[in-house]
Amino acid sequence: MIELDFTKTGGLIPAIAQDAASGQVLMLAFINQQAWQKTLETGEAHYWSRSRQELWHKGGTSGHVQKIKAIYVDCDLDAVVYQVEQIGGAACHTGMRSCFYRRVEGDALVSEGERVFDPKEVYGK
Amino acid sequence: MIELDFTKTGGLIPAIAQDAASGQVLMLAFINQQAWQKTLETGEAHYWSRSRQELWHKGGTSGHVQKIKAIYVDCDLDAVVYQVEQIGGAACHTGMRSCFYRRVEGDALVSEGERVFDPKEVYGK
Repeated sequence: MIELDFTKTGGLIPAIAQDAASGQVLMLAFINQQAWQKTLETGEAHYWSRSRQELWHKGGTSGHVQKIKAIYVDCDLDAVVYQVEQIGGAACHTGMRSCFYRRVEGDALVSEGERVFDPKEVYGK
Repeated sequence: MIELDFTKTGGLIPAIAQDAASGQVLMLAFINQQAWQKTLETGEAHYWSRSRQELWHKGGTSGHVQKIKAIYVDCDLDAVVYQVEQIGGAACHTGMRSCFYRRVEGDALVSEGERVFDPKEVYGK
């Protein structure tokens, strides 16, 4: 298994999820050694949830998993890019395709993204 | 100025630099409030260097600055995407276009990137 440098940021490194087909950046989350290992083993993106302090199989509840198409590591081995197929079409819990759906326009945020699903229907809240 | 959430990760949040034209992810670094402010003020990407513990104007020495074309913020306001024009063509200190130039292939890393400059010529070392 490829060894990453987990010595910084309290044992976590950032993982960028990018749509393998379009190149759109979908989300950023953190991984620890366990999440890295599970991602490689299963071919589905796993992260470390900082808020819940637990392994996070993205889409494990909703079915909207991220199928790994390719993984790239950076020059320092302390950041990774997951190129994924986003099942269900949306990475963001808001139902938007990407978490990065707002563009900075001076002092305002302009929503540009596309809403793929209604979070109330998927999460029941 | 758009207020980001710098309360996690010791006052730092990850910033993804993405080529505005091709969509390629070029690098990932961290920003603090000062780097965010300087980026907005100058239209050139600034980061916080964790190794040097100082404000980092990317390309300030080499001239290979990153001209901001658009900035996107994520749903939690704790990660940003800088869409940039990378002057000089390479974001990585190794001379590769992207820091993410190695693909994970089982237990090996396969170099796929394109070397744009010779770091010895640019940095003199």
